[in-house]
Amino acid sequence: MIDDDGKKVKKKLIIKTWFNEIATLHHDDLIISTRINQLIHRQRSDYQNILIFQNQIFGRCLALDDAIQCTELDECAYQEMIAFLPMNIHRHPKRVLIIGGGDGGVARECCKHPLVEQVVQCEIDKRVVEASKRYLPFMSKSFSNENKLIMNFQDGYEYVQQHPLEFDVIITDSCDPKGPAQLLFDAKYYQQLFQCLRPGGVICSQAESYWFELKFIQSLFDKVDKIFPSISYATTSVPSYPSGQIGFLLASNEANFNFVEPKHRFNEQDCERFGLKYYSESMHKASFVLPRFVRKALNL
Amino acid sequence: MIDDDGKKVKKKLIIKTWFNEIATLHHDDLIISTRINQLIHRQRSDYQNILIFQNQIFGRCLALDDAIQCTELDECAYQEMIAFLPMNIHRHPKRVLIIGGGDGGVARECCKHPLVEQVVQCEIDKRVVEASKRYLPFMSKSFSNENKLIMNFQDGYEYVQQHPLEFDVIITDSCDPKGPAQLLFDAKYYQQLFQCLRPGGVICSQAESYWFELKFIQSLFDKVDKIFPSISYATTSVPSYPSGQIGFLLASNEANFNFVEPKHRFNEQDCERFGLKYYSESMHKASFVLPRFVRKALNL
Repeated sequence: MIDDDGKKVKKKLIIKTWFNEIATLHHDDLIISTRINQLIHRQRSDYQNILIFQNQIFGRCLALDDAIQCTELDECAYQEMIAFLPMNIHRHPKRVLIIGGGDGGVARECCKHPLVEQVVQCEIDKRVVEASKRYLPFMSKSFSNENKLIMNFQDGYEYVQQHPLEFDVIITDSCDPKGPAQLLFDAKYYQQLFQCLRPGGVICSQAESYWFELKFIQSLFDKVDKIFPSISYATTSVPSYPSGQIGFLLASNEANFNFVEPKHRFNEQDCERFGLKYYSESMHKASFVLPRFVRKALNL
Repeated sequence: MIDDDGKKVKKKLIIKTWFNEIATLHHDDLIISTRINQLIHRQRSDYQNILIFQNQIFGRCLALDDAIQCTELDECAYQEMIAFLPMNIHRHPKRVLIIGGGDGGVARECCKHPLVEQVVQCEIDKRVVEASKRYLPFMSKSFSNENKLIMNFQDGYEYVQQHPLEFDVIITDSCDPKGPAQLLFDAKYYQQLFQCLRPGGVICSQAESYWFELKFIQSLFDKVDKIFPSISYATTSVPSYPSGQIGFLLASNEANFNFVEPKHRFNEQDCERFGLKYYSESMHKASFVLPRFVRKALNL
């Protein structure tokens, strides 16, 4: 175990306790308890509680405040999808902006894309990046990619205001819409994203579970629909998130944008070369197929 | 609240407690706790504990022994898929056999299909059917469909041995592979299913989560692959099940069988007429698109 200052505690402590997560935004009627087989790191940063632990099912887990953000078992299903969905529908994704994503998983995926020349990341909490570098190397390895990645420890909300017309793809890898992350779900933020994009640009944002937060997604759609001429929703399967399903809101500043057909089509060799465990061309298309009740609710 | 003998307890008791479910077959390192906002019914049958309760997120829930079987919120994603996937890839699904499925949800879906003339169901536990009839009417309504449905309170394992060459589609809606339900995952059962099918027949069985039970699914595939010339796996999203993902093993006695393209294609009007909330033609196809790591593990 490592203590708060990163000092090694020689005697290996196995602390058996549980990480308990309330599953939905508005009710506490479902709780998911993940056993902490080994506590790896815990820290209170200026913004949040950072907890890294080992679980027998999920492997290494990162939790921020009340919620698991990613685990070794299933992070591929989130990171690959939030990154490759927007990059592969953009004609030429040269410059990518990541808001949030302090664990490094999204940056790792973005740096893989052969057409991407630069990835700029804005993470408000330097401590998350530091902890990930030390304890989550499978996600944070691209932080050392000096050819492609520029890291800013800055509020993403501010950054997008200051950089109009600079990016082809903007990925918002945020926490749930409560506390400070709530700002990343408001209309003003989406207006800034719109300004920040170059022509033919695409955004992709973490957009909650349609099973548990359909009303929230509807109201988000209502806001974003007024700003972007094209908007869609894709889904992925992430068992460490409540409901096991999470979605992405995709939007483009181009009208009649085709989100479903990738412009860059990866064959099996490409997928293998990029080390993709979840994403494929067929998965890209399938992720836009939604249950009938969701399509109806979102007018898709 | 209703007591074990179905007698109404006049004073309405609101019992606040939790239903705790261990999420995987072999580890107890993940526990999902669903609040019992209102206990509706509990009973010990000859086979299992039956519990019906109300939860704020899932609505009415049915649990058998240690596991939630279905909830009002998400049962559509399971019942529609396990029923319409095999029925819509069969050329002419006249006779359908359901093993298990005591809640009635699968029978409800099978009875909807215009080509289905008869649905035979084998449920070992009469008490589950009775409880469902009384407390889960949204699922059990087809139990009164005397035109199409024949109900047998019998061991499905025995039934399939006694009825060779009788069915076009056989659906196994079983509990998890532990206790008595384990028999429904062995090679002998699949040999009986093979005998029980008419030419061009299709089976569809509950086949666990690829996130949590991939090795189990691999070994099931190994067994079934030796018996059926065509085999495949489809997935659906069910938030009340651990991992939020569950799959179906589909197999046919016909070689080179196409599972992905439905032979009966429902347009939007059809889906509306059949009251489908989850299934559609595009969902049918998308459900066979699996993450790369699953495709590799199952050689699909």
